[in-house]
Amino acid sequence: VAQAEHFEIVDRPLPSPEQGEVLVRNSFLSVEPAMRGWIADIGNYSAAVEIGAVMRSLAVGHVVESHSPDYLVGDALLGWFGWQQYSIGNSGNIIGRIEHSDLPLSLSLGVLGLTGVTALLALTKIGDPKPGDMLVVSTAAGSVGSAVGQIGRMLGCRTVGITGSDEKVALCREAFGYDAAINYRSGDLDAALAATCPDGVDIYFDNTAGSISDSVLRHLATFARIVNCGTASISDWTNWPTGPRVERHLLVKRARMQGFVIFDHMHEWPAAVRQLAQWVRSGQLRYEEDVLEGIEAAPDALAGLYRGENKGKRVIRL
Amino acid sequence: VAQAEHFEIVDRPLPSPEQGEVLVRNSFLSVEPAMRGWIADIGNYSAAVEIGAVMRSLAVGHVVESHSPDYLVGDALLGWFGWQQYSIGNSGNIIGRIEHSDLPLSLSLGVLGLTGVTALLALTKIGDPKPGDMLVVSTAAGSVGSAVGQIGRMLGCRTVGITGSDEKVALCREAFGYDAAINYRSGDLDAALAATCPDGVDIYFDNTAGSISDSVLRHLATFARIVNCGTASISDWTNWPTGPRVERHLLVKRARMQGFVIFDHMHEWPAAVRQLAQWVRSGQLRYEEDVLEGIEAAPDALAGLYRGENKGKRVIRL
Repeated sequence: VAQAEHFEIVDRPLPSPEQGEVLVRNSFLSVEPAMRGWIADIGNYSAAVEIGAVMRSLAVGHVVESHSPDYLVGDALLGWFGWQQYSIGNSGNIIGRIEHSDLPLSLSLGVLGLTGVTALLALTKIGDPKPGDMLVVSTAAGSVGSAVGQIGRMLGCRTVGITGSDEKVALCREAFGYDAAINYRSGDLDAALAATCPDGVDIYFDNTAGSISDSVLRHLATFARIVNCGTASISDWTNWPTGPRVERHLLVKRARMQGFVIFDHMHEWPAAVRQLAQWVRSGQLRYEEDVLEGIEAAPDALAGLYRGENKGKRVIRL
Repeated sequence: VAQAEHFEIVDRPLPSPEQGEVLVRNSFLSVEPAMRGWIADIGNYSAAVEIGAVMRSLAVGHVVESHSPDYLVGDALLGWFGWQQYSIGNSGNIIGRIEHSDLPLSLSLGVLGLTGVTALLALTKIGDPKPGDMLVVSTAAGSVGSAVGQIGRMLGCRTVGITGSDEKVALCREAFGYDAAINYRSGDLDAALAATCPDGVDIYFDNTAGSISDSVLRHLATFARIVNCGTASISDWTNWPTGPRVERHLLVKRARMQGFVIFDHMHEWPAAVRQLAQWVRSGQLRYEEDVLEGIEAAPDALAGLYRGENKGKRVIRL
């Protein structure tokens, strides 16, 4: 699923906003790994995008026509505007006005948006980080993972990143400040975890599931917390995959494993963005972006994520 | 492991208590499923019992000689006194004096002891029960499970018990007040869960792990809590078993899965026992006991648990 041939670019007449609505000209569209789940036909935390509908997506843009007392022409908005050039914005799909006009607009789709807010809230709410904790992050150089590693470090954790290439290991160490980084494709991940986490893993921020997680679970410390934030290593849940059972790990270590979906926490979004923006301004929170050009790039953009071709948060500039 | 031939009954001279210690004549010895883990040679939450040592066990008895200012001859004590007729009691192994002299002494090894306290604290601390929640319990007629079901019901939950025979289904319904009970050996557990929990499972109190848990996880409600309290269905973790991966369930349902070991919560034991004793006196908390006679019954007592021959909490009367 989610290959270029599953999408079609179509021209439609410009929509007209009704009373209470605005017309938004989108500047950047988001491309997320989670989108593959949104268009799959098995159960998920949100309804599937129907065939023929506009691809669901976060986007940022500016108001070009307003019939709403809440928004003025020129306001920068973040919302569920979909993969399209113009969108109708209303109370159902607008997340909010973008306040940090000193920072690039596209960041509201990444480190100051879904990925950064997810990293901050999932780490603090489920990971319960404390100074001195050993924090292990999978997809450590990715847009969520890199923010988790840096935020964890700011909160006093020791940080170990797991990633898939020597180049990303270098990025983890040099750009994102991990105390250690492991290329899981080169050598024995269990041995590397034993060497980097001799007292065990207090927090595992899991973006992958799969065999990486199986290894980390063998190295949990007592009272460990596991944040289930994504399952990037599992391409197909229709043929449900198996793995080593987790119950004994959780019982013996009195560990906790919990799923996180940002949509349960939207009321905390504005405060989280303000905190993240401060860290970006001070240079304490670094990020990478991968910018595709034009709506023509959209159909293959998601498949490309899963081919691993992006470095950093992928967005489409219109 | 844990067969009769792995134990030996030996005669030893009566020990003499030193200053600060007491001599206890044991009245009842406990037999727990968890004991199999205590004598296994793979990692656990407590050190393994060494070959040749007294089998670790909770026991209740009376002080027959006291060199301690804290205990008088005749006091009833609960402690880690082991599978033996007489024990030295001291600050390292005494849990406390048994206060409820109106209730049978043996209950301090069951519903007013390890199993009851585990049921109450694991359910309330990890399960977070709220009125109207759907609570599913595995080994629902067992000593922990039956207490969980009854306590959950008192706290306003709807309760469904999973057990392994039609006889135990009747016990769940009639003695322990479950709203529904399922014999997982007869028919399709998934279909039975769908029928009894149409809105999903809010709390799964898991004493088994294994395929029973795999079925329950397919029926979780959003924000479900899973209490990992035991893994009775898994006889061997040295050849680590596999099963359907849990990450997607936890993520899509934003569910939480957490291990519970009572030894982390011993400071709450006295208050828990007082609450449980009130419920026993009022008839709201029922229990079954399975009493073996004499120390000669000890060697085969644990293996017998795993053969499923007991009905209720197994103890040995001396």
